[in-house]
Amino acid sequence: MKIVEFRITPIAVADPPLLNCAGLHAPYALRTIIELVSEDGITGASETHGGERLLAQFEHVRSAVIGRDAWDLARLSRAVEEQLAPVPGETPVVMPRESVSVVASRIFGAIEVAALDLIGKATGVPVCELLGGRVRDEVHFSAYLFYKLAGGGGEGDDVREDRWGVATDPAGIVAQAKAMIDAYGFRSIKLKGGVYEPKQEIAAIHALREALGPDTPLRIDPNGAWTPQTSLEVGKALAGVLEYFEDPAPTMAGMAEVRRGLLADGNPMPLATNMVVTSFDELADGVNADAVQVILADHHYWGGLRAITHLGTAAQALGLGLSMHSNSHLGLSLLAMVHVAAATPHLTYASDTHYPWQSAEDEILAGGRVEIKNGAIQVPTAPGLGAEIDQDALARGRERYDRCGYRVRDDRAEMRKHVDPAWEYLMPRW
Amino acid sequence: MKIVEFRITPIAVADPPLLNCAGLHAPYALRTIIELVSEDGITGASETHGGERLLAQFEHVRSAVIGRDAWDLARLSRAVEEQLAPVPGETPVVMPRESVSVVASRIFGAIEVAALDLIGKATGVPVCELLGGRVRDEVHFSAYLFYKLAGGGGEGDDVREDRWGVATDPAGIVAQAKAMIDAYGFRSIKLKGGVYEPKQEIAAIHALREALGPDTPLRIDPNGAWTPQTSLEVGKALAGVLEYFEDPAPTMAGMAEVRRGLLADGNPMPLATNMVVTSFDELADGVNADAVQVILADHHYWGGLRAITHLGTAAQALGLGLSMHSNSHLGLSLLAMVHVAAATPHLTYASDTHYPWQSAEDEILAGGRVEIKNGAIQVPTAPGLGAEIDQDALARGRERYDRCGYRVRDDRAEMRKHVDPAWEYLMPRW
Repeated sequence: MKIVEFRITPIAVADPPLLNCAGLHAPYALRTIIELVSEDGITGASETHGGERLLAQFEHVRSAVIGRDAWDLARLSRAVEEQLAPVPGETPVVMPRESVSVVASRIFGAIEVAALDLIGKATGVPVCELLGGRVRDEVHFSAYLFYKLAGGGGEGDDVREDRWGVATDPAGIVAQAKAMIDAYGFRSIKLKGGVYEPKQEIAAIHALREALGPDTPLRIDPNGAWTPQTSLEVGKALAGVLEYFEDPAPTMAGMAEVRRGLLADGNPMPLATNMVVTSFDELADGVNADAVQVILADHHYWGGLRAITHLGTAAQALGLGLSMHSNSHLGLSLLAMVHVAAATPHLTYASDTHYPWQSAEDEILAGGRVEIKNGAIQVPTAPGLGAEIDQDALARGRERYDRCGYRVRDDRAEMRKHVDPAWEYLMPRW
Repeated sequence: MKIVEFRITPIAVADPPLLNCAGLHAPYALRTIIELVSEDGITGASETHGGERLLAQFEHVRSAVIGRDAWDLARLSRAVEEQLAPVPGETPVVMPRESVSVVASRIFGAIEVAALDLIGKATGVPVCELLGGRVRDEVHFSAYLFYKLAGGGGEGDDVREDRWGVATDPAGIVAQAKAMIDAYGFRSIKLKGGVYEPKQEIAAIHALREALGPDTPLRIDPNGAWTPQTSLEVGKALAGVLEYFEDPAPTMAGMAEVRRGLLADGNPMPLATNMVVTSFDELADGVNADAVQVILADHHYWGGLRAITHLGTAAQALGLGLSMHSNSHLGLSLLAMVHVAAATPHLTYASDTHYPWQSAEDEILAGGRVEIKNGAIQVPTAPGLGAEIDQDALARGRERYDRCGYRVRDDRAEMRKHVDPAWEYLMPRW
C-alpha cells in the first residue's frame, strides 16, 4: 500500500469570539488537512492544527512519507523525528524554543491518522478496529462552554450566524449551556474559565449546578490562570460540585501544590490536565508528584491514535482517569477522536469538543457535519474514519485561508484589537 | 472476516531434564495450538501453554469466538472474561485460586495472536505491521542455560538426542554456553538458578564471565528461591558482572528489600521480573516500591501482542527496561515474540527463549524450525506470523500428547521420580 501522494492543505474555519485566559479567538481558526494517496488511488485523510510553521514542517518531512508503505508507521515516526532535527547550516523548521520530539509527535500524529484512514479504506475496516477493536458503539462528549462576545465568526462577506449569543456572566453561561444541551443533548458540561474574576466563574458553576440539577457533571478549566492559592479557594467553593478541576495551575509543582491543599481540606476533587502532562515523558512525573489524576488525551499532539490507546492502558495501570482534550476543529478531527475513544476501554469521562462552535458552511466532509445526538456520536461502521472529503468544501476552506491573512493563532492580538489595546496575557492573572 | 472454525489442539513436545527451583522438567512439555479459520478459508494460528485445564477454558469460550469478525478483538476480550467468570451452580473452569482476569488474559492472548495471523494473511501484511510497524529487522535472543541431567527429552521409542549433555556444575554450564553460542551465535546469556547452593551458582556466573569475556551480558534467575539476605550476598558477589538480576525474591516486598539493600551497597544492578509484575494491575506497585527495574514481558499471559506494545510504551514512560520471558515452546510462539519485539521500540534487552531445548522432530511449522543466527531471528516479511502449520507434524504432536499421559506441568513430581523421592519445593530454599 505504497503512498504516492502527500497533500497538505491549510484551511481557515470561521470561529466565534470565544474568550480564554490567553485572549480572544480570532474570526478564523486555522487547520491543516492531510491527504495520503496510495498507488491504487485510495485516499486517507486527517485534520490537525494549522498555521504557517506547521505547513513548513509537514512539507519538510515529505520525502519520509512518499514511497513508504502506509503500514510502515513505526519507521515513519522515526524518520519524521530525524528529518525535523536541526541540521547545522540549514534553516531550522523546528524553532529553538520548540522540542523536536514534541513537534515530531504532532506531525507524525496527523500522518498516522491519515495512514490509518487509508489502510481502513483499503481493507474495508473501520479505524477503531485497526486500533484494537471497538468497546463502545457511541462516544460521549461534553458541552464546552465559553465566555463569548457577540458574533458567530468569519469576516466581511463571510460572517457566520451567531447561534449562541453573548455570554459574559453566569446568566449568559447558563443560557449557553441550555442552548447547547437543546441542540446536542450533552450530559456533561465544561466551562472554559480564567477569563473573569474567579468569583464570577465560581458563580457561573453554581448557576449551572442550580439550572441543570445534580446529575450533570461540571468541570472548569482556567488554563493555569490562577495562583495555587486562588485555585484552592475555587476548589473549596466548588467542593462536591466539580467532576474534575482542569489545569488549576500551569506547572507540575503548582498542580501538586493545589492537590495537596485540596486533600488537606478533605477535598478529593481530581485534577485534570492538558498542560503539565502532554507526552509520555511527563507521565511519571505527574503521577509521582500526584499533580494529575485525569489525563486529557489528544491524538493531535500525543503522537496519533495508537499512542492514545497506549496512553489509555498506561493511565489505567497508573490509576489515572482519562478524558479527551480538544481545539477548534472540524468533523475529521472529531471522527478520529470517536474512533480512538471507541477503541480505548479506559476512557472514563465524556470528551471535550469545540465542534458546536463551528458551522456547517466550514465543514469539509461529504455529507456535512457529524451528528451529535444525546451528547454522543455513533461510532462509524464504514471503512477508515467513515467519511470522505468534499473537495469543493476543502477548496473553499483553502480559499478562506488564503484570504483571511491569519497565519498563526494569536489570541492576545485579537484581545487587544477588539477589547483592550493594553491587554496583557498574565500567568497567573489572579 | 468472520471466524467459522476454532480448533484447539493439545500437543506434547519432547523436553530435556532441565532443573529449576520448582523441580525438573518432565520428558514432555505441553503446548496448545489454536487455529482460527475465516469464512473464506484463511487460517490463523498461535501457540500457548498446555494442559488439560487450559483446554477446558479454551473450549468454554468457543461461542465467544465463532461467528465473530477477526478484527473485533476488544469485545472478544470482554466476552472471554465474561464467559470465564464463575456461574453459581455450574462447574467453574477457572479454579477458585486462579484469577478470572489472569486466565482471561491468557486465553484471549492466544486467540488474539491467531486472529492477527489470520488478519495478516487475509490482508497480506506481517503481524508486526498490524502492531504499529517494525522498528527492527532482526530480534536478538539470549542463550537460556539450565542445570541439566542426562537426556534429550521424550520417552520410550520417542527419545531425542541429548545435544547439550549434562550440566550440574560451573564447568558444565560453561560448556553448555559455548555449545549454544556455537550453534546459535547468542550474545547474551541467562542462567536459570535456584537449583544448587548459591555459592555454586555464583561460581558458574564467574566462570561464564571468565570463559566468555567482558562483552557478553550475563543474567541469573533463581525464580525467587533465595531469601532477600541471600540475594543480597549474591548481588554483592556478582556486582558489576550481571546485566540484570532476575526475580531474586518471590514477592514485591522481597524484591524491594533486595533493591534497597543493593543500592545501599552502591550496587545499581537492575532487578528484572516475570513473577511479581505479571499484569498491568501490578505495574504501579512494582514501580512505586522500586521493586522492579526491568519487566520480562510475555504475550502469552499479558493479554496478547497488542498488550505488549502498550506495555512497551508504559515501561518507557515509567523508566523501566523491557525484555521478554519464555517457557518451553515451539516456533509459533517464537515468531509471535519476534513480531511483537519488532514492533516494540522500547525493547531494551535480548529476549529469553527456550527454543534451543526443543528438537526439529517436534516442530509443527511447515519448513521446520525457525533459524536463530548470530543470536537473532530475522523478522518475517511474509503475511501474518510468516509461517504455516504442517498439519502432519501437528497431528504427531497431538498423538504424543495423547500417548504421554502428562496433563499438567508438575516439576516436583519429576524431581521426586528421578532425583529424590523426598524432594520438596521450598520457597525460599536458601
